[in-house]
Amino acid sequence: MQALSLPFDPAGLVLDRRRGLSRQLYQALRQRVLEGQLGGGTRMPASRDLAAALGISRNTVMRAYDQLYAEGFIEGRVGDGTYVAQLAHIGGPAKKLSTKLSTGLSLGLSTGLSTISSEITGVTSSKKAETRALENLETHHLPPFRQGAPRAFRVGLPAMDLFPFEVWAKLYGAFWRNPDLARLGYGDPAGEPKLRQLIAAYLRSSRGMNCTAEQIVITSGAQEAIGLCAQLLLDAGDRVAIENPGYRAAAHAFTNAGATLCGVPVDNDGLDCAALAQMAPCRMVYTTPAHQYPTGVTLSLARRLALLAWAEQHQSWIIEDDYDSEYRYSGAPLAPLAALDRQGRVLYVGTFGKVAFPALRLGYLVLPAALVEPFARRRSVSVRHSEIGTQAVMAEFIAKGHFQRHIRRMRRAALSRRDTLLKHWPVGIAGIGPMPEVAAGLHLSVPVESLAREQQLIRLAEQVDVEINGLSSYWLPASPEPHAGLVLGFAAVDSSAIVAALARLREVWRS
Amino acid sequence: MQALSLPFDPAGLVLDRRRGLSRQLYQALRQRVLEGQLGGGTRMPASRDLAAALGISRNTVMRAYDQLYAEGFIEGRVGDGTYVAQLAHIGGPAKKLSTKLSTGLSLGLSTGLSTISSEITGVTSSKKAETRALENLETHHLPPFRQGAPRAFRVGLPAMDLFPFEVWAKLYGAFWRNPDLARLGYGDPAGEPKLRQLIAAYLRSSRGMNCTAEQIVITSGAQEAIGLCAQLLLDAGDRVAIENPGYRAAAHAFTNAGATLCGVPVDNDGLDCAALAQMAPCRMVYTTPAHQYPTGVTLSLARRLALLAWAEQHQSWIIEDDYDSEYRYSGAPLAPLAALDRQGRVLYVGTFGKVAFPALRLGYLVLPAALVEPFARRRSVSVRHSEIGTQAVMAEFIAKGHFQRHIRRMRRAALSRRDTLLKHWPVGIAGIGPMPEVAAGLHLSVPVESLAREQQLIRLAEQVDVEINGLSSYWLPASPEPHAGLVLGFAAVDSSAIVAALARLREVWRS
Repeated sequence: MQALSLPFDPAGLVLDRRRGLSRQLYQALRQRVLEGQLGGGTRMPASRDLAAALGISRNTVMRAYDQLYAEGFIEGRVGDGTYVAQLAHIGGPAKKLSTKLSTGLSLGLSTGLSTISSEITGVTSSKKAETRALENLETHHLPPFRQGAPRAFRVGLPAMDLFPFEVWAKLYGAFWRNPDLARLGYGDPAGEPKLRQLIAAYLRSSRGMNCTAEQIVITSGAQEAIGLCAQLLLDAGDRVAIENPGYRAAAHAFTNAGATLCGVPVDNDGLDCAALAQMAPCRMVYTTPAHQYPTGVTLSLARRLALLAWAEQHQSWIIEDDYDSEYRYSGAPLAPLAALDRQGRVLYVGTFGKVAFPALRLGYLVLPAALVEPFARRRSVSVRHSEIGTQAVMAEFIAKGHFQRHIRRMRRAALSRRDTLLKHWPVGIAGIGPMPEVAAGLHLSVPVESLAREQQLIRLAEQVDVEINGLSSYWLPASPEPHAGLVLGFAAVDSSAIVAALARLREVWRS
Repeated sequence: MQALSLPFDPAGLVLDRRRGLSRQLYQALRQRVLEGQLGGGTRMPASRDLAAALGISRNTVMRAYDQLYAEGFIEGRVGDGTYVAQLAHIGGPAKKLSTKLSTGLSLGLSTGLSTISSEITGVTSSKKAETRALENLETHHLPPFRQGAPRAFRVGLPAMDLFPFEVWAKLYGAFWRNPDLARLGYGDPAGEPKLRQLIAAYLRSSRGMNCTAEQIVITSGAQEAIGLCAQLLLDAGDRVAIENPGYRAAAHAFTNAGATLCGVPVDNDGLDCAALAQMAPCRMVYTTPAHQYPTGVTLSLARRLALLAWAEQHQSWIIEDDYDSEYRYSGAPLAPLAALDRQGRVLYVGTFGKVAFPALRLGYLVLPAALVEPFARRRSVSVRHSEIGTQAVMAEFIAKGHFQRHIRRMRRAALSRRDTLLKHWPVGIAGIGPMPEVAAGLHLSVPVESLAREQQLIRLAEQVDVEINGLSSYWLPASPEPHAGLVLGFAAVDSSAIVAALARLREVWRS
């Protein structure tokens, strides 16, 4: 190793050449930042110098830097190199991170960001930190997923029309023609071992998670995963913090377990951790960091670290719902909370429903090791285990490379459909704010000036067979001032159907 | 219609000649008995006379009589014709029904029935009516279903080796090759409409139930069905009566909902309704009337009616788990409680796991109409709905006639395997009582003289790769004196494997 003048000693950076080098470098540097060895403001070596010091290619270093940059661990100063970011929770002055993330949402009209940030909390100042207990959450309200043939702009559906059904049918045929009888009796409540292994490998390589097959529990979609967390970790009366606006079906799972819901505001950096910290302690927080549901913002790295510190301080649980993280269009995805978690406080929820199709009902939990046995035991009593064929066929689908190919195909399709929506979106409609940047996910949220106008636009859309959800419907019922907006899924139908739907919308909305 | 001297007026018996006549006649007569129009002790017309009066064949009348006889609604006196039975709950003296049912169990050794009946209660006299609250039910105990390749004498497995996998594979291939995208998004939480229709039709024709598709809710096997009942109908602290010995996995579902378990003794007529009536009222009773799990006895008609009356009186719920009712080898099956229920107190649980295979995880509830909406709503939050492919393929399997053919094939196979077990069972082994008659189901229970001997026999069996469950393991933990016995599933492997396993058992048990 050459003796170069580096701002830190790379001697401890031992890389295994048999595995991906840039990921190892990224992980090693990230760890040093998190542990304070690389303090905020430290200047990072030029990529060329570090590459030479480590005897690896410059491209490898740049890929690692790109990921650290995308996640907010390092930042660039124009004309002045690259520095470790100031992260409040690990000491040093609490300097605001410059967020380099494209957020999926710009919620204001023309009022400026500061106004927006306070407005989006959706609670009056006296209630800012906490909405009141929602004892009377209306239980008749079903979550807003709708049934029937896909149409523009249904939320929650990927480009199902592109799924390789012929491959899928063949895998099913092959499995059922000559199954091993040992797999047809009662199975492992945590799921088929082979599928668990493949999911763990997928999460290690695509999401930077350091998990093993033993930590995976297969579920009937994300919903059963969330429900299990509620049943296993909550007692009646426990307080659960949830994003507001947020995923209402999760809220129902918590209230079914007897919990009291505490809405936490969401702004352009995601769940407001300062507001959470001011609230009476909660036993659990439910969050969608990769692509907040429904606003589409991404939880910033500073917030991620603050949230983890909060959970550690209060010995609370974090339910991280990573429902559509496969869809990232610009910038690299941030490391999930589960990848940053050192204390075993994060329960990670994943699903195949947004890559394949929802009716598959196949999802999974990644659990801290100590929780696997109680979760599997509970599952053995609630449903015993998942149907064998679906698990076995998905395992083959992954093992044979179809899954990774399909993810790429789906990402391209969603991006193309997003672009069609943005390009043909009717502009100049009264009361509708500007379209947001959309860096991730399968839906977007666009602001509307009032609840009355939101409802009117939705009604008019329905008249021309266009389906749009009201942003206000994602707020907790007791929220004093839910924001109005339109939530549109852009992946459910192909580009020609999107163009046609937008033409109809333009006409009916202008009249 | 001829004017014959009949003991009752058949004028109201209007039969639709386009549908099965014997079933209509059976239903009409059963209804008259239940409603008291045909009082206990009424002499039934000779089959020839009734046939002539109604203008139908004598065979038709005899089939209807056979069913009424098998269910205990009518009884024969030797040399003296056929009479309506005395059924306590519908008025008239509470005369003991002569049970004409072959029970699956003879629990005594040579002590005589009266001793057995008091012994089998498994509770001391001071605790007879009720075992104490089981607050500390050990939650680490997993239900006794075992995993891995089928072997003799695993409980809970049908003859999976005879399942028509080629047909099943083709149906899967056909479904997935060209699916309707409208079915791949979010579906009906109560289940696929077509499958619900077919199940309702099957239950109407095979189980005499008067149900509609709207009453069916598809579940992940019987276990999810039981769990939903627990979650929806129980509050913490509610008392739930369960058969003791009984199906422990159901007990776990109730304790998970915060319920207090109350064990009810089982004798040769099934759940002891008199003991139940003496207990403090329970919000729910869980029972396996067709083939008590694990003893194999059948709940008598008198008990069925008493149980329904009890539920009506206390406004309690009856969970009727009809898990293996397709397997009846002698005598016609009794009408399920759900078919006798007039007050909407019975929730009927069915499963495809014992006809196809358990890993299918496909079961259903038949609910009183008022409960369908809350159950579907809860299911939409707990798992959303069941995977589409399994539901669609099972619907095709039924619609194309494969299901009914398969039931017949499975019944023949189970009967043949039962006969092999009975024929080759080693006799004269110390401490093992006589084999019972086995009129139904997929397993039997044979008494053993002591718990120590039970455990010894099971250990020895395991040494020669034979799997047997201890009857004592089906008792509630706090039961003072669980009975010892061997519970053997006889359908899991073919006859040659049964013969081989029994030869090994004979050797190891005699040594």
